[in-house]
Amino acid sequence: MRDQALSFALDHQDAQLDELKEFLSIPSISAQPQHKRDITRAAKWLAAHLLSIGMQRAQVMQTSGHPVVYGEWLGAGKDKPTILVYGHYDVQPEDPLDLWLSDPFKPQVRGQNLYGRGTSDDKGQVFTHVKAVEAYLKSSGKLPVNVKFIVEGEEEIGGPSLDPFVEANAKLLAADVVLISDTGMPSPDLPALTYALRGLCYVEVHVIGPQRDLHSGSFGGAVYNPIQALAEIIAGLKDSRGHITIPGFYDRVRPLDPQERQLLAQTLFDKAAFCAEAGVPSTWGEEGYTVLEQIGARPTLDCNGIWGGYTGEGSKTVLPSAASAKISMRLVPDQDEKEIFELIRAHVTRVAPPQVKVSVRSLHGGKPAVVDINGREIQAAASALERAFGKRPAFVREGGSIPVVTTFKKVLGISSVLMGLGLPDDNLHSPNEKIYLPNFYRGIQASIYFMDELAQ
Amino acid sequence: MRDQALSFALDHQDAQLDELKEFLSIPSISAQPQHKRDITRAAKWLAAHLLSIGMQRAQVMQTSGHPVVYGEWLGAGKDKPTILVYGHYDVQPEDPLDLWLSDPFKPQVRGQNLYGRGTSDDKGQVFTHVKAVEAYLKSSGKLPVNVKFIVEGEEEIGGPSLDPFVEANAKLLAADVVLISDTGMPSPDLPALTYALRGLCYVEVHVIGPQRDLHSGSFGGAVYNPIQALAEIIAGLKDSRGHITIPGFYDRVRPLDPQERQLLAQTLFDKAAFCAEAGVPSTWGEEGYTVLEQIGARPTLDCNGIWGGYTGEGSKTVLPSAASAKISMRLVPDQDEKEIFELIRAHVTRVAPPQVKVSVRSLHGGKPAVVDINGREIQAAASALERAFGKRPAFVREGGSIPVVTTFKKVLGISSVLMGLGLPDDNLHSPNEKIYLPNFYRGIQASIYFMDELAQ
Repeated sequence: MRDQALSFALDHQDAQLDELKEFLSIPSISAQPQHKRDITRAAKWLAAHLLSIGMQRAQVMQTSGHPVVYGEWLGAGKDKPTILVYGHYDVQPEDPLDLWLSDPFKPQVRGQNLYGRGTSDDKGQVFTHVKAVEAYLKSSGKLPVNVKFIVEGEEEIGGPSLDPFVEANAKLLAADVVLISDTGMPSPDLPALTYALRGLCYVEVHVIGPQRDLHSGSFGGAVYNPIQALAEIIAGLKDSRGHITIPGFYDRVRPLDPQERQLLAQTLFDKAAFCAEAGVPSTWGEEGYTVLEQIGARPTLDCNGIWGGYTGEGSKTVLPSAASAKISMRLVPDQDEKEIFELIRAHVTRVAPPQVKVSVRSLHGGKPAVVDINGREIQAAASALERAFGKRPAFVREGGSIPVVTTFKKVLGISSVLMGLGLPDDNLHSPNEKIYLPNFYRGIQASIYFMDELAQ
Repeated sequence: MRDQALSFALDHQDAQLDELKEFLSIPSISAQPQHKRDITRAAKWLAAHLLSIGMQRAQVMQTSGHPVVYGEWLGAGKDKPTILVYGHYDVQPEDPLDLWLSDPFKPQVRGQNLYGRGTSDDKGQVFTHVKAVEAYLKSSGKLPVNVKFIVEGEEEIGGPSLDPFVEANAKLLAADVVLISDTGMPSPDLPALTYALRGLCYVEVHVIGPQRDLHSGSFGGAVYNPIQALAEIIAGLKDSRGHITIPGFYDRVRPLDPQERQLLAQTLFDKAAFCAEAGVPSTWGEEGYTVLEQIGARPTLDCNGIWGGYTGEGSKTVLPSAASAKISMRLVPDQDEKEIFELIRAHVTRVAPPQVKVSVRSLHGGKPAVVDINGREIQAAASALERAFGKRPAFVREGGSIPVVTTFKKVLGISSVLMGLGLPDDNLHSPNEKIYLPNFYRGIQASIYFMDELAQ
């Protein structure tokens, strides 16, 4: 049965690519209200596609926000394990559009890569499991395990709808393991299983100075400039050693144990390649930690955007009324995103000069997570990846966030297998996002192997 | 002759207002290339209008940038003085548009004010002299003095074209005094003559971090964030006492002499009204100086705009490639705008972290200026204002900049009379700019009196 599925998958690569392109061409940007209809279109497309490959049930389920796509094939029977495949059909905004070499929503193959928004994050990755299921169902009419899909539309905005949805549908979603492909692998030939994910606390800071824009020649020098105030607030969030200065920020950070530091130190990491990839002359981060620790194992803080005053062409001599910034923090166990939000809100409010009004609001939050690497499911995944890629996978930490891993553990009581297919140069959240096509096809194979392994 | 002109002016207030509205309705925004044609339209309109009121000559003269409108009436003869009226027909951008209560380019009278972009800065003010000239020419067929107009289109962008234009046309522009209405008066009933103007150095700072936008989860923590770097640069430009920290910045600042401080201390200033006008709970500025000194007599630094990263709706977890800011400094004698530019460029380059690239470019510059208040022309202006407003004018410093005052002194060897009609709440460079109409009409009278006084 497995071998039939493998050959079916190999024989249908053109169709797999065409269908993925169709999925990718729907601009399901969750952050922008004008794409609300595209969100619905993407969800409906996926549900219809799940039915078309032979799933017993597939439907678009409403939430308080963007809908969730649910699908199931439970024909393997109760004595076989059930896999819950999680992914997301929503994508990041495409801007800056002018840096894309091809239309972000008209996927284009160039060389061995497929370019387009969502190719790697996450439509292309979640689609590997859809195609693995199809390969089994179309070649043998059945799967070695039971499979459920839950594909959401708010991952990129950390939408609040998924947690209540999982809680309300715990019975429907009951499974033995969650399978997620929404992470990365270090290089095209080295598959990886991610065992730790960071959480996120994303805020927007607004500083209001004068109640209207003023002439800088008439008021400048005697009125606190809100851009200055915001710059001071941001500059003060880190000290010269790269430590975050928000009081209490590190209180719940679990120290890295020596064994893990040793493991990370042994991980193949090419600093020059990292710098070349980022396009920076050198790295900069928290003192006392290696780059892998900085990006994977330690909490971080970044400004994601800033705006205020006159930003057009030329020189308007305005003393602006307001300035704003988007600031996000990646969190590690056992930090709590709600507590961190209260800490940064209190801190920013306290340090702002009394001549301005400041407000901090939460845009997004998610808990950090660590997965047990000795579980049976993780070992089955390791074996599947080894068969598909011909190499034993690395166990890696991931800087990004998949807060739903914590939710599945807490609500459903099950662990997640993070079988990532993304590459460091996939340009996630950037122009020219792509997926390396050989990995897309090997991902389908790995998924086929995993289902087979798990059924043993 | 004077009295006929005064009654002509009084009898034609409706026409004066209608013509001003026509002038104001041309959106001659010098900073925005899409308004290039409106700049030309405004210049042509004004030249045609100068001819229509009886000027002997009026024409649009090309420069390397926006054109200059020149006009003359030299019928008073060589034994009478010549006044060179300077003004500008260009205006500030109108944004933020949504805060305007009426269309910025469809001037509207509400109460005793006329609202619209350019009403006070500077179309409305320069137009008082046009109407004064008209009143003489249409009532008596002549003026008591010779009058030339030079009305430029790059004042709001500190365009580089005017200085070379004045140098190339020094003979054409030869005069005994420059008359400028582009400044303010403290309150509707208290006319003013400005004797000091600040200069300006306006720069744009660009910080480039990674060569493209990165995923903050994959790179954040190990890559220097350009917004962070820019915030640190800006935050470091002032210390906690409000002093500007650029090395050498104050080196050429002429200390305020005790007599002038005493004069400023005696000037009527309502701090509560100033705060209410600005919409701030309290003032903030350089320690050791009063508010009037801070805004009029000391150099200042303000951020006029800042932008970088994701500024749309929602939460994009991007580590941006770049961040930029517009920063301007108001200068006092004997600071030099070119030297200050070199100082800030060197300083910003030096303090920027080595992990980012930083560039500083000059957008605009102008020298500070001080006018001798004992000159015959200033005294004639004081007398004219007293007749028109029924009150002796105050002698004031102005926070803004009219760099051309320095140019006229240097190239033509003549002083400027700064007979400002703007009010502190005129919303210059802001939404709902207005001119107080009684001052517009009194300004016409003051101009008529001034020409008469100067001819004695």
